[in-house]
Amino acid sequence: MKRTRKRNVSVSDRGEFALIADIQRVIGPTKGSVIAGIGDDCAVLRGGDPNTYLLYTCDPVVEGVHYRSRDPARLVGWKAMARNLSDIAAMGGVPRWAIVSIGLRSRTDVRWVKQLYAGLQAAARKFGCQIVGGDTTHVKDGAFVVVALIGEVERARITLRSGAKIGDSTFVTGVLGGSLRGRHLAFTPRIDEARWLVTHFPVHAMIDLSDGLSSDLQRLAERSARKVGFEIHAAEVPISHAARGSLTAALNDGEDFELLFTIDPRHVTALRTKWARKFRVALTEIGRVVHSTRQVTLIGRDGSKTLLTPAGYDHFATR
Amino acid sequence: MKRTRKRNVSVSDRGEFALIADIQRVIGPTKGSVIAGIGDDCAVLRGGDPNTYLLYTCDPVVEGVHYRSRDPARLVGWKAMARNLSDIAAMGGVPRWAIVSIGLRSRTDVRWVKQLYAGLQAAARKFGCQIVGGDTTHVKDGAFVVVALIGEVERARITLRSGAKIGDSTFVTGVLGGSLRGRHLAFTPRIDEARWLVTHFPVHAMIDLSDGLSSDLQRLAERSARKVGFEIHAAEVPISHAARGSLTAALNDGEDFELLFTIDPRHVTALRTKWARKFRVALTEIGRVVHSTRQVTLIGRDGSKTLLTPAGYDHFATR
Repeated sequence: MKRTRKRNVSVSDRGEFALIADIQRVIGPTKGSVIAGIGDDCAVLRGGDPNTYLLYTCDPVVEGVHYRSRDPARLVGWKAMARNLSDIAAMGGVPRWAIVSIGLRSRTDVRWVKQLYAGLQAAARKFGCQIVGGDTTHVKDGAFVVVALIGEVERARITLRSGAKIGDSTFVTGVLGGSLRGRHLAFTPRIDEARWLVTHFPVHAMIDLSDGLSSDLQRLAERSARKVGFEIHAAEVPISHAARGSLTAALNDGEDFELLFTIDPRHVTALRTKWARKFRVALTEIGRVVHSTRQVTLIGRDGSKTLLTPAGYDHFATR
Repeated sequence: MKRTRKRNVSVSDRGEFALIADIQRVIGPTKGSVIAGIGDDCAVLRGGDPNTYLLYTCDPVVEGVHYRSRDPARLVGWKAMARNLSDIAAMGGVPRWAIVSIGLRSRTDVRWVKQLYAGLQAAARKFGCQIVGGDTTHVKDGAFVVVALIGEVERARITLRSGAKIGDSTFVTGVLGGSLRGRHLAFTPRIDEARWLVTHFPVHAMIDLSDGLSSDLQRLAERSARKVGFEIHAAEVPISHAARGSLTAALNDGEDFELLFTIDPRHVTALRTKWARKFRVALTEIGRVVHSTRQVTLIGRDGSKTLLTPAGYDHFATR
């Protein structure tokens, strides 16, 4: 009897999207209390309160990947907390409780750790979240900071990735691209903006931009109904100063941590007016939800159409 | 004006206990919804249900520290989940929802990741817990698996570290020491035993043995009222086969993940009888809670008394 030997496939060959699908197959379906599991910004859980859902997320930051060893510890702490706060924002939720697990080399200066926690605590406190536990362990190489966060959202206000409807207007907050030139360590998670949005408008779908607009648009399309896609106008994509005019950077850089959401076009005028009165951060309509097989199309200034593929950050891409 | 330059103090010089105290000072007190924060096995939170508390914990396992790169991935996954289940057990709770964050080198074989998740899922499912989310990121060196876990416990049944009363009998489950010879990867978290205990008996204080009996006794003493200490009988400490008769190993090795608890002595007879009918795992009375200034005293076979100091695992000790 012959057996074919399976080829080794590394996680970088497989890529992050496929790897997550593999993991989902191993874990199988969730049930009962789990409204949304792997595949949204947070897990959504039915806890004891009949009017709210629990939101649950955990994102690590890793030395040499999400920050450099020479970055100020306070900013590293801020980023580690703010990334997770941004996930709660993407569901329209309120952050409540954080636990912090850190892996440190034995030689790390205690002052570095205190500064790290000062940054973690500053971000938590600013958005009404409490750090309620943690664990420190030693590592040989490559420190990490893992924040797990529990939030809450009224059941009527939860905003998933999956709700985009054909005809919806598509918006982003802020400006995109070039985040790695510094903003990625000091960004403001859009908790206040997201809460205001879900309180005042029926937002259909929302995600926070962590891996780049091109990737995260694809995520919204993939979580939506089968025949939903996006048309994005290149001329409308808000490019940050740090991206130095590069549309490619604004589409693909990642770590913007802005909100991307869709809403019925009849609310657009009211949304623009009220937003401008309330917030200083930009709000830009970049395109529409269209009838398409989960494709994202970029419409150029000349009217040309290109398929926009996910070129944002893949955690296992070899680069 | 002269300024004295502060000496660099590394986390290994400072030690884990002092570092956690430093971190607590930076974070400051918790409030409102937080019943117990840093310093117990789990954070205890007042969620939406008036009859239960949420339990919340997050413990990492790190390559080269908690497992070796050649250990079977399935067991690494089991351990990563079971460590956190053990923390929920220590509060008398029921595990509900887990999120898994993993840091992997790009060259990691996809089959290793699938096996890791199979182990995580096996441990979760065995104890009624669901994996509801996760995140994968790449690391340059030193893989890690961080599980964050939410559990629940009836408010009337929660068991903190802090409840030991003078005169209490002190018990441990199972046998201690030598865990690193293999058991640390495949241990059974004492969820069922702990649930049974808190359902049938008024347990005063409980902790799971993660860092060694000597360290974890000290933890119970430190969380108790000011004049509480322990007297432990050396002859009663249950030594595992893997510890090869070494009392020192049983006291200090760590990663036993057994339960250590205290209970009013009038329940001891009923506890022994009912336990023996219900469980095959050992239950041993090792000593008593005594009037003392948070000291742990080891009473030798000859009646000699020694101060038992925390010699268990310190995550930042240089060894």
